[in-house]
Amino acid sequence: MKPVLNVFKIGGGIIDHEPDLLEFLRRFAAIGGPKVLVHGGGKGASEMMKRLGMAPRLLQGRRITDAATLDIVTMFYAGKTNKHIVAALQRQGVNALGVSGADGNVIRARRRPVAEVDYGFVGDLDETSVDAALVGQFLELGLTPVFCPIVHDGQGQLLNTNADTVAASLAKALSHCHAVELHFCFEKKGVLADANNSQSVISKITVADYAELQAQGIIADGMLPKLDNAFEALGYGVEKVFIEHALHMAGDVKTELCLT
Amino acid sequence: MKPVLNVFKIGGGIIDHEPDLLEFLRRFAAIGGPKVLVHGGGKGASEMMKRLGMAPRLLQGRRITDAATLDIVTMFYAGKTNKHIVAALQRQGVNALGVSGADGNVIRARRRPVAEVDYGFVGDLDETSVDAALVGQFLELGLTPVFCPIVHDGQGQLLNTNADTVAASLAKALSHCHAVELHFCFEKKGVLADANNSQSVISKITVADYAELQAQGIIADGMLPKLDNAFEALGYGVEKVFIEHALHMAGDVKTELCLT
Repeated sequence: MKPVLNVFKIGGGIIDHEPDLLEFLRRFAAIGGPKVLVHGGGKGASEMMKRLGMAPRLLQGRRITDAATLDIVTMFYAGKTNKHIVAALQRQGVNALGVSGADGNVIRARRRPVAEVDYGFVGDLDETSVDAALVGQFLELGLTPVFCPIVHDGQGQLLNTNADTVAASLAKALSHCHAVELHFCFEKKGVLADANNSQSVISKITVADYAELQAQGIIADGMLPKLDNAFEALGYGVEKVFIEHALHMAGDVKTELCLT
Repeated sequence: MKPVLNVFKIGGGIIDHEPDLLEFLRRFAAIGGPKVLVHGGGKGASEMMKRLGMAPRLLQGRRITDAATLDIVTMFYAGKTNKHIVAALQRQGVNALGVSGADGNVIRARRRPVAEVDYGFVGDLDETSVDAALVGQFLELGLTPVFCPIVHDGQGQLLNTNADTVAASLAKALSHCHAVELHFCFEKKGVLADANNSQSVISKITVADYAELQAQGIIADGMLPKLDNAFEALGYGVEKVFIEHALHMAGDVKTELCLT
């Protein structure tokens, strides 16, 4: 039987609220067994860009990453946020190792081709992107990898990418040797049937349910790429995928995604 | 016989000049055997602080690091500079792993006590700071560690420190299992007998010579902590220490430091 490995992803809603971040990290530290953390960005990069007179450009929720923007997000994600989380986890007794995709060549991406939109220095991942063997070696050394969403193309170019995608890609690659449980953590208790009712968490969503929920407009916008990633991960052999509150990880109320 | 391990340190004079940095990295990539790179800062952090209306404060060449300054240097050193170097080395076929001292708890420091001056969030290293075993495990995995001068106190606090000190501390700690050769690389060919004559490189400096050169004022200012670190490393068992040009590493002209 494969050993259980937990992959957690946190985003800006937690990262931007320091007490919540520290509480999440305390809960993360208490989880036994091998584990991996993936973090997204947060508002810091956009705020810094505004202070510097740069205008952040978003299209369909995705950032257009020119060279100056890449510098700022690399500084924030791989520098400030990643090292802050690593130092906080060290305090909790977790031997965290912060990595970008360039470190150890652990996630190699391709720059997104220019079609209707040029997203700039944005990386797309595929099934060959993650070096799961190296992640496994880090885990064997007792290290807990902490990934930021900065990757590289192997040709010297750093690339910005999406933390949900990084988490799902890691989960898929690691599922060959581990029973992976993937947790998308955010500031709600799960996928809500009614956006205005925080108690309306849908406890289980199958592929068929997902199509129906999209048709009804209940799942839309930013949740779509998250859930697309999640179901794809299940299809690749990830054992369990949850959408859950970052501060109620051990709670009963959460959304579990299932193929059937 | 212990295997040879080369530890290289580069500073702002190289980092701030992109063609020189890439040329250095090409030469570094061509060196066989296990190796470690330590990089300092550069002007980027100070320039960013000026753009943000923050006034960098230096005292005797050392930065006073308040919380806002620590954020900026962490972003630059651990984020932008470190990941840029790592990605460039990956292009050269070197499997670089960028680390701060917090990553893997590999360098733990103590915040400098407040005496006449409060340097702020600045870390001091001692002989217990470096986890040489973990660095050795990274090397055994075929990884080339790339250190930035950001460390931590183990209690969740990141700390700024001096890259020369990081390089010397790593060299000392690694000398228990390796024949370490420590290279301080900068934009001159070595220690100059005449600051106005770039050809006046002193090929060998002993401890006795060093005292004499200080008395004569030939070695002064910023070179003093570098040489103090270097001689201390020799005293701790580091095999060889060189002060050399970052772009003429294989050249004959360089300064070698020797105990006698």
